[in-house]
Amino acid sequence: MRFKPTLDDIQTYEAGKPVELLVRQYGIKPDNIIKLASNENPYGTSPAVLKSLTDTIDKVSIYPDDSAYELKSAIASHFDMQNEHIIIGAGSDQIIEFVVNSICDKNSHILMAKTTFAMYEIYGRLAGAVILKTPSHQHNLKEFADIIKRQKIDLLFLCLPNNPLGECLDADDLYAFLDSVDKNTLVVIDGAYQEYARYKDPAKAIDPKHITTRYSNTIYLGTFSKAYGLGGLRVGYGISNSDTIATLHKLRPPFNITTLSLKGAIEAIADQQFVSETVAKNFSQMTRYEQFASKKGLRYITSYTNFIFIYMDNSSKELCEKLLKKGIIVRDMTSYGLNAIRITIGTKEQNDKVLEVLDMFC
Amino acid sequence: MRFKPTLDDIQTYEAGKPVELLVRQYGIKPDNIIKLASNENPYGTSPAVLKSLTDTIDKVSIYPDDSAYELKSAIASHFDMQNEHIIIGAGSDQIIEFVVNSICDKNSHILMAKTTFAMYEIYGRLAGAVILKTPSHQHNLKEFADIIKRQKIDLLFLCLPNNPLGECLDADDLYAFLDSVDKNTLVVIDGAYQEYARYKDPAKAIDPKHITTRYSNTIYLGTFSKAYGLGGLRVGYGISNSDTIATLHKLRPPFNITTLSLKGAIEAIADQQFVSETVAKNFSQMTRYEQFASKKGLRYITSYTNFIFIYMDNSSKELCEKLLKKGIIVRDMTSYGLNAIRITIGTKEQNDKVLEVLDMFC
Repeated sequence: MRFKPTLDDIQTYEAGKPVELLVRQYGIKPDNIIKLASNENPYGTSPAVLKSLTDTIDKVSIYPDDSAYELKSAIASHFDMQNEHIIIGAGSDQIIEFVVNSICDKNSHILMAKTTFAMYEIYGRLAGAVILKTPSHQHNLKEFADIIKRQKIDLLFLCLPNNPLGECLDADDLYAFLDSVDKNTLVVIDGAYQEYARYKDPAKAIDPKHITTRYSNTIYLGTFSKAYGLGGLRVGYGISNSDTIATLHKLRPPFNITTLSLKGAIEAIADQQFVSETVAKNFSQMTRYEQFASKKGLRYITSYTNFIFIYMDNSSKELCEKLLKKGIIVRDMTSYGLNAIRITIGTKEQNDKVLEVLDMFC
Repeated sequence: MRFKPTLDDIQTYEAGKPVELLVRQYGIKPDNIIKLASNENPYGTSPAVLKSLTDTIDKVSIYPDDSAYELKSAIASHFDMQNEHIIIGAGSDQIIEFVVNSICDKNSHILMAKTTFAMYEIYGRLAGAVILKTPSHQHNLKEFADIIKRQKIDLLFLCLPNNPLGECLDADDLYAFLDSVDKNTLVVIDGAYQEYARYKDPAKAIDPKHITTRYSNTIYLGTFSKAYGLGGLRVGYGISNSDTIATLHKLRPPFNITTLSLKGAIEAIADQQFVSETVAKNFSQMTRYEQFASKKGLRYITSYTNFIFIYMDNSSKELCEKLLKKGIIVRDMTSYGLNAIRITIGTKEQNDKVLEVLDMFC
């Protein structure tokens, strides 16, 4: 066979270490493992979701409603939009894939912040596109603006708030920037952590209807994997004008989310109380990590998400290995060229243990 | 934005009508609807799967083990192979997508039977490839051989048994054909319904280890959506040599199946008794449709699957509309240029009802 030569340079993506790996490699009991590496919701998901999933389990042999009519209606209603403005993906990752593949080939240019969600670059490279990044790790709109003046950009990613760093632009600054962007450049506003940002600071809140109506060249991405606590069910969504959504639907494989994922997401969006309660707990617990870092003289990035990014004095790689042996999984940032760790904010009990161990090692 | 011009000619895939649609459009109660349109297992799935899913529901906030280590081990063990020979997809559909995208661009040629699984062509067109089809609807290896003599083929699909027609080649004929295929042509053996074919006629059984070891240019696809009764959970797999599998992994998005899908599939493959019992019931019930067709003088294709393809004298489209209003969903084949219907073989009770209604309308 002749596989595409572009694949030669592609590395297989390595996800964060799962609990199962520590069980296999270190023989640690699952109950003794604290995984704060993938920004899951440590409080699980809404009890209403769990009940509805239990009631739906005997439907696993049946394909889901491929139109996702009911879920689209629920999302549309939540954001005061119509079903035709919404596409459902297997995580918002899959919407990123649709967007890249609807636009990019080897003649395309994609622009993003230097350190941001890895899948933008991975899908971009798979499509053969040229990847451009700002000089600064964090989102810096001045740098974005400088680059788009010099170079035609086909696709531009803004991760607001930004994973894996945690910072977030103000919505007003974003709008001012969008006024300067060529209308032929599609701008992806990845709002995977927006439920957190809008709670902490309303100035960071991006309204999907407002932004996609005002700027026809934008698409907003949301996910059920973070604040809604459904990371394991793989459901995300894209919101844009109906023409863009119709085009993206051409790339959507049939039955791209499971029967249980569909049901779970419909219930999850109905329980906003679960979201607001767990988001509040998240920021209350986050202050403990901020205080820890300050006490140790370690620099951290003010976070609008459910994780915190802390720069280390000593090797972050060695620290993460030591933590692993204690059954604690966090994300080492060495592969991003940063001597730092990203820790998902856990429950009080998880954070008690993690902070105690960190105190020994830092 | 400038979406790719190749998308202009792409139609959005329309899946079979879900139960939810009949409820919405015709006001029929869900309990009164018989859906025999998507080749789901009418007996559901293994009780062991249901129990294990119930026990796993509180893990829906946690991302799955992205390496799918345990599931790969179970599949490898089932087929006497190694984990490195296996890739997991969100349905075998997704493996088809990986295969097409690992090989095809607008200079590529893909060959398939005239009437076969629709996703081969859909993914091929999305990649911009040229689609070639044999003159005959059913798989005819002489026709395949004639075409590969005249035209370099990059990717060749064989659906054994074939969806939506139901016929299946003998394994010996397949091997003889593969001897004549250029080693630079990747041949996909789609075994989505092999659990049915191997039960009905061992001469149709294709052993993934045997075929992928003997022919390095083959990949075997399997699914949990049919005999294993997990259509709603979206799990399939590809089996090939370790180099091909490693290349395909470069295209696999992280977390491409859900936490529950992973758990369900691991349990499903362990319960081979469920598979053999429901496959036996399937063929026992299928004879009723064969007898019905014979009685009415309607031609049908001998099926090695869990569905039967029956040619109609009168309009199949009108028949399907009449059936819909009775709450019965089967697949009309008009869009394939065939005046025929494809009916999934249901349970005895479902078939009682469907045959009674068909008797009125045919």
